[in-house]
This record gives sequence, structure tokens and C-alpha cells, in this order.
Amino acid sequence: MTDLVIDNTIVVTCDGAGTIIDKGGVAVADGRIEKVGGSAEIAPYAQRAKRTVDGAGHILMPGIVNTHCHAADSLFRGLVENLALEPWLQTVWKAEGVILNPDTSRLGSRLGFAELLLSGVTSVMDMFWYPAETVRAAREVGLRVATGGIFFDPAGVTALAIDRRVAEAREFFEEFGRADDVFACTMPHGAYTVSPDNLKSAWKVAHECGGLFCTHCAETRAEVADIVNRYGRTVVRHLDHLGCLDGRTVLAHCVHLDDEELDILARTGAHVAHNPMSNMKLASGFARVPDMLERGINVSLGTDGPLSGNDLDMWMALRLAAIIHKGYTGRADTVSTRQALDMLTINGAKALNAADRIGSLEAGKFADMVLVDVKRPHAVPMFDPMTHLVYSTNKSDVRHVFLGGEQVVRDGALTRLSIEDTMAEVAAMVPRIRATIA
Amino acid sequence: MTDLVIDNTIVVTCDGAGTIIDKGGVAVADGRIEKVGGSAEIAPYAQRAKRTVDGAGHILMPGIVNTHCHAADSLFRGLVENLALEPWLQTVWKAEGVILNPDTSRLGSRLGFAELLLSGVTSVMDMFWYPAETVRAAREVGLRVATGGIFFDPAGVTALAIDRRVAEAREFFEEFGRADDVFACTMPHGAYTVSPDNLKSAWKVAHECGGLFCTHCAETRAEVADIVNRYGRTVVRHLDHLGCLDGRTVLAHCVHLDDEELDILARTGAHVAHNPMSNMKLASGFARVPDMLERGINVSLGTDGPLSGNDLDMWMALRLAAIIHKGYTGRADTVSTRQALDMLTINGAKALNAADRIGSLEAGKFADMVLVDVKRPHAVPMFDPMTHLVYSTNKSDVRHVFLGGEQVVRDGALTRLSIEDTMAEVAAMVPRIRATIA
Repeated sequence: MTDLVIDNTIVVTCDGAGTIIDKGGVAVADGRIEKVGGSAEIAPYAQRAKRTVDGAGHILMPGIVNTHCHAADSLFRGLVENLALEPWLQTVWKAEGVILNPDTSRLGSRLGFAELLLSGVTSVMDMFWYPAETVRAAREVGLRVATGGIFFDPAGVTALAIDRRVAEAREFFEEFGRADDVFACTMPHGAYTVSPDNLKSAWKVAHECGGLFCTHCAETRAEVADIVNRYGRTVVRHLDHLGCLDGRTVLAHCVHLDDEELDILARTGAHVAHNPMSNMKLASGFARVPDMLERGINVSLGTDGPLSGNDLDMWMALRLAAIIHKGYTGRADTVSTRQALDMLTINGAKALNAADRIGSLEAGKFADMVLVDVKRPHAVPMFDPMTHLVYSTNKSDVRHVFLGGEQVVRDGALTRLSIEDTMAEVAAMVPRIRATIA
Repeated sequence: MTDLVIDNTIVVTCDGAGTIIDKGGVAVADGRIEKVGGSAEIAPYAQRAKRTVDGAGHILMPGIVNTHCHAADSLFRGLVENLALEPWLQTVWKAEGVILNPDTSRLGSRLGFAELLLSGVTSVMDMFWYPAETVRAAREVGLRVATGGIFFDPAGVTALAIDRRVAEAREFFEEFGRADDVFACTMPHGAYTVSPDNLKSAWKVAHECGGLFCTHCAETRAEVADIVNRYGRTVVRHLDHLGCLDGRTVLAHCVHLDDEELDILARTGAHVAHNPMSNMKLASGFARVPDMLERGINVSLGTDGPLSGNDLDMWMALRLAAIIHKGYTGRADTVSTRQALDMLTINGAKALNAADRIGSLEAGKFADMVLVDVKRPHAVPMFDPMTHLVYSTNKSDVRHVFLGGEQVVRDGALTRLSIEDTMAEVAAMVPRIRATIA
């Protein structure tokens, strides 16, 4: 039984061949894509579908995959400005320590996820203190989330001893490890905040439970110097030495790597989450994305948190990824349009080890889909839909979003919940949050 | 007689003191700002105003000033991709040569200006082949335009001899030189396409007529090498040697300058139009904006044309200007929030020699004003309105725009004309435009 057909639209599939259908659509059954094709192929499905959507004037594309985020930090958006990563983190952690508990974390996650979903993100890898609350917020809003137990040796917000962190990480897998809408992980914060033994514990849990391992990596020169000073190796070498790199590893940032470290990533199959916005704003630097692409390293895209953005805009991340490496290397032909769009979609799916389920419009995958309005001045003329998505689209062009076939954004508004109450609740916290850094 | 009052809003004035009013508004009479103040000060004006607008849930800010654009190139948006400036220009000029005439130039300008106005741009410096058509398009849509006679030694689209170019430049001043909505200029394309004598002719016309002189400058390393090879001097030195630099000069790009050239700009008072989007996308490089700011050089912002963008988004230009120089210099405190916002507004007004009329909300200036919606997830919480404008706002947050007190954008739609016909007309040209580069 076909539940939904979207037809009469431009389809940018993001499949392996980069297929674009000038006029066609998709059929959806039981939350998964049944058929992708031209209108003639879709017509028989439309006749028996419970619901048909006319996609005229839109591009249909796969849901966006954001591979690095701290959505709940939306609570602190714009609180601390114009500092480099290290002093900035000290201030941020102070505010987090006062404000955060399971309820406020869920509130902040809900706000951040609403922003993401409204812009077409249907899967997000999110690192935050109370991962079960992160999942609950994602379910309230309507997107899939990759998250799990945090490892962090300083007290941090939750002040847990390592054995409790390990236990909670295992509990997370037990509770959420088999859910369709959760990609369970362990999330050690970074090699500079988690000891080698504890990194190995996080790795062990992830692997025993069949999940992902995600950590910050080589974001700043200072971090690299710190790790070299402590362990006599750079960050990627350190993680490799500890046995923490393989195809289930997602490394956020990877700004300061040498050639041999790039080779290590290529050899191990570890994935990169590239965060151009925070890398620029916090003055971390330019990740060697063109060199990564040349070596076949899988580069996906992240917004990072809204403390370093200050919004959660994957279209901005896409545009930055497409242009800044041209500016930095002086090569206008580096990072092709197709490569940039893949970073936004299928490469994120690969990073989550979920390319069989998300990241492109192909039969059998979850019906996570976005309709992008192209009836706007900046969308005319359109010589190539892919070029339009990478170089002219912005987040407000996203009008409709489907998660497993369920419409979770309609005409630019959430369908599962109204975000007004969340926004009012957060706005009311402003004086209290501001006071934390006074 | 007060024609219009906007009250109950956050006012970001962009005046010299960076004044922000948490709750207040403006009164407008005869197209000019009569009063800016808190709600108590605005109340008496509201009582006698013909129209009052409740600005609750918005930031009121001055209209944006875009100091470098080729709006009519909207016709070619996305046609040529992944090339460096020089081969890219050769292809672009081929397409322009076939397609452009006064009618199509006006059509393209109308499309581009619609996009700009919808995002809050109320004044734009635009360089294109038929400047009178540019003015007509700007008037149809509803924004002020800085433009004028083009100087270009190759045939180009219009294929005029230099004496005709000089005559037409003078005619432009005669026709538009006294209009409130035109900032008349001469526009020699660049030192690499205009001979020293013809640059001097353009300069002479501008100065005799009391207008501005605008040209491309030091956009790429290849351009600099070319000018050094021909004239034995770098581009800024060449222009200075010809006597073409003073406070009425606007130089677009200025990417590749040495210290002494920066000193020349500071000494002469020439203005910079910084175009971070095209400088990245065409791999031109990073303008030395932090060094310019340190020397007190006036840095304004431009979108450049939609061929190198591919949209016309001053909010994107703002965000790029605020972040990429942090990334490039490794200094998170370079380009402050205030400096970035000034580039978007008052610095553009200074570049147009019109800071007495536009660029900030101050009594006596034109009532060019923008209402930015802040009832959106990415606007919550808001610790500082200026930070929100620079780091979280995007163009779709612009809901209402006023030009000289006239509402030219209402609820995200143009009021003077519907843009649908223009969009349809341009879309219909796609096969013909595509064929030019086949």
C-alpha cells in the first residue's frame, strides 16, 4: 500500500550516480521509499496512494545529515563572543554548569532541533550532557539523532566518575540501541579532556554494543600542542595508537592534520565532520578538505553548536564548505558542486554508518525528504538544480520536510509541536543565563 | 505632519555611538526620519501620525547599503562554475555579448534588485552596461542606486568608442545627477581593461559633475601581475599615480595589496567594497580587512554579481566578513560585531558619500528602514541585538522594508510590483542563455 506520493517536482537524489530527474517524484510505503522515478513511472503509485503531494515549483532532495552539533547550547547562543576556543570554552562551561540539568538540556535541544528540522535536517549527530533527554527532544520535534554516553574527565555538568559514565553509556545502548530513529554512540569529548584509558573504555562500549564512536579532534593548534606535549604524538596519531580509529569513528573538526595523519584517516576509514562555521568564527583555521577529498576520506558536514555559529544552519555550512577552500587554496575548481552536496547528505549518512537507510533518495531507504521552494528570485534562472542547492539556496527555502514519510514540517512550520512555548520559555531565562558570566 | 511611526521595537541605529534602544521606534515625515527614540519619546508622534506600525517582535535597523553589484547578471546565475576569475570572465563576457541589450539588462536588473530589496538592501552601487536602464529597474522595484557611465576599452556589450563613453557618462549626470534616489558615478571597469588616459577621463567626468568614481581593484594576483607588467606599478599605486584616488573613489575587492598600498588608501580616503563571497568562490583570496580596519580605511560590503555568488545576499556577505578573517588570521577578536554591522550599513553610506542621508537611523536622514523578524528559533535567546544581526540573522528574516518612508516590502513581498512576471520571463530565457556557451 502506497502511503504517499510526491510528484511533479525536480528530484535531486544524491545517489551514487548523482541522478537528477527533471520532472518526477517518489512513492512511499511504510515509512520507506518504494520508488523514485520520472512522472510516468510514479503515476501508477499515485493512483493508489493515500496522499499525493504536488511538488511543482520545488526541488525534492534527501533529508540533510548534520554530523556535529550541540543543539542544547542554543540556550547560550551569542552569550560569549570574539574569543578563541580555549578561553571561550572556559566561559561557556561556567554558564553550562549553572544552567544545565536534564530539563533545561531537553529545552535547549528542542529549540535547536526545531531550528534544524525547519531547515531540512532529518538526522543529527548531537553531543550533549544528558543523551536520553537529547533523544526525547528529537522525538518531540521529529528527527533522527546520533547520540550517546558522554565521556569527560573533568567534573563537567554531570560530575560522574568514569565507572558511572561507562554504565550510563551501556544503559543508553540498552534503551535506544535498536530504535530506528537513534544511532547510538559513545561520545568522549576529546583527547584533551579524556584520558587514554577512558577513551579506550568509550571505544570498547561502542564496539561491544555495535555503535559509533565520536569525538572532537585537532580543532586548534593549541589542542595539538597539548596532546603532543602530554603523549608525544599528534591527535590523530594518538587516537590511532589507542586503537580508536575505524569506519565507525566520527572525528569532529580535524583542522590541524599533517599529511601522514590524513593517510591514517584514509587507511582506517574514520569519518570527518567538517564544521566550517565554528572553525572560522573561533579562529581555529581551515581544515584540509581538498586534501581529504583527494585521499578519499569521507568528509561530512556539521553546524557545531549555536554557541560558535550562532545559528544551526546546514545551508550556511554547505556554502562555506563550497567556497572557503577555493579562497584558501587559490583553486577555483576545488570542492566541486557535487562533492559539496554529497557532504550535506550521503557523506553524513556514511559517517553514521547508515548509508543503507538515509542520505539519498533511493528505493528501500527511509523516506526522509525535503521540498525546497524554487519560486524565488534567487532561484531564477536555474541552469542546474545541484548548483542551485549549493550556491543559492538558503534555509528559508525549505518548506516541507518528511521523516519516514511523516510530514514533520508543513509550509515552514513544525507539525508535531508548536515551538512558541519553547521559545518563550528560553527567552524568559535570559536574565538568569546572562548572570552566570557577570 | 508625521506620516509614519514605527514603535514598540528594538532599534539598532548604527549611529556613531552604536546606540541600541531596547523598546522604541522612529517617526517619519516627508520621507525623512523626524525622531528616533524610546517609546515615551515616540508616543507624541504616534498620536498625530497618519500611520503607525507595531514593530513588536522585530529589530528596526537602517536599510542595508550594498557597494558592489552587477545585478543584471542575475540572468546568468549559475551558468559558469568552478573557474578562476580570468577564464570565468571570458565565458561570462561571451554570454553577455549575445544576450544583453537595454531590455534584457533592465529585466536582469529588476530580478536582482527584487532579491536585494527583499533582503533589506535599500541602496546599491551597481555597475552594468546600460546605466539608465539600471536606474529604471531600481525605480520599478524601489531602491536607490549608485551607477553611471561604464568605461571599458574592449568592445564589450555596447562597443562604444571612448568619446561616446565620455558623452554618455556626462548625459547620465545630466539626467540623474540631481535625483534623490540616484548616486551618480563614472564606472571604469578596471585598470586592466581601461587605459590610463581613459581612466583619467572617467575621473574627470566624475569630478566635474560632482559624482563618484568606482572601479575594480586588485581582485586577483594575475591582475596585479598584469598591471605591474604593463605599467611598472601595482594597481593601487597605478590608480594613485593617475590621480584617481580620493574620498569619492570606491574600489571593489582590493584583495592583493601590500602595506604601502594600504597606507595609500588610508591617506587618500578611498573606500573599499569588500566582496567576500566572490573572493572565495572565484578563489581570488582574502582581502586584508583587519589591516584595513586598523588603518582606519572605510571598508564597506558588496555582494558582487550573482554570477560569482550565486545569490545577492548581503546577510551572507556580512557573516562571511565577520568570520573568515578570524579563520584566516587566527585571531578570534578581529572584525568586531560592531565593525561588521557598520560595514553593512554606515560604511556603505560613507562610500557613497551619502552618510548625511543614509546608513543609520538618525533624525534628518532618509527613512530607509528594515524590520527584521526575531520571533524565530535562531533568534532565541537574544543577549545582544547587534550580535543577533551579525551572527544569526538571514535574509528571510527581513519582513518589511521602507524607502524614504514608503513601504516597499510588506510581509516579505514587494509592494511596487509583482516579481512573478519578471521571474517567468527570465526562466523562459534559459535555453537561449545556455546555448551561448554550448
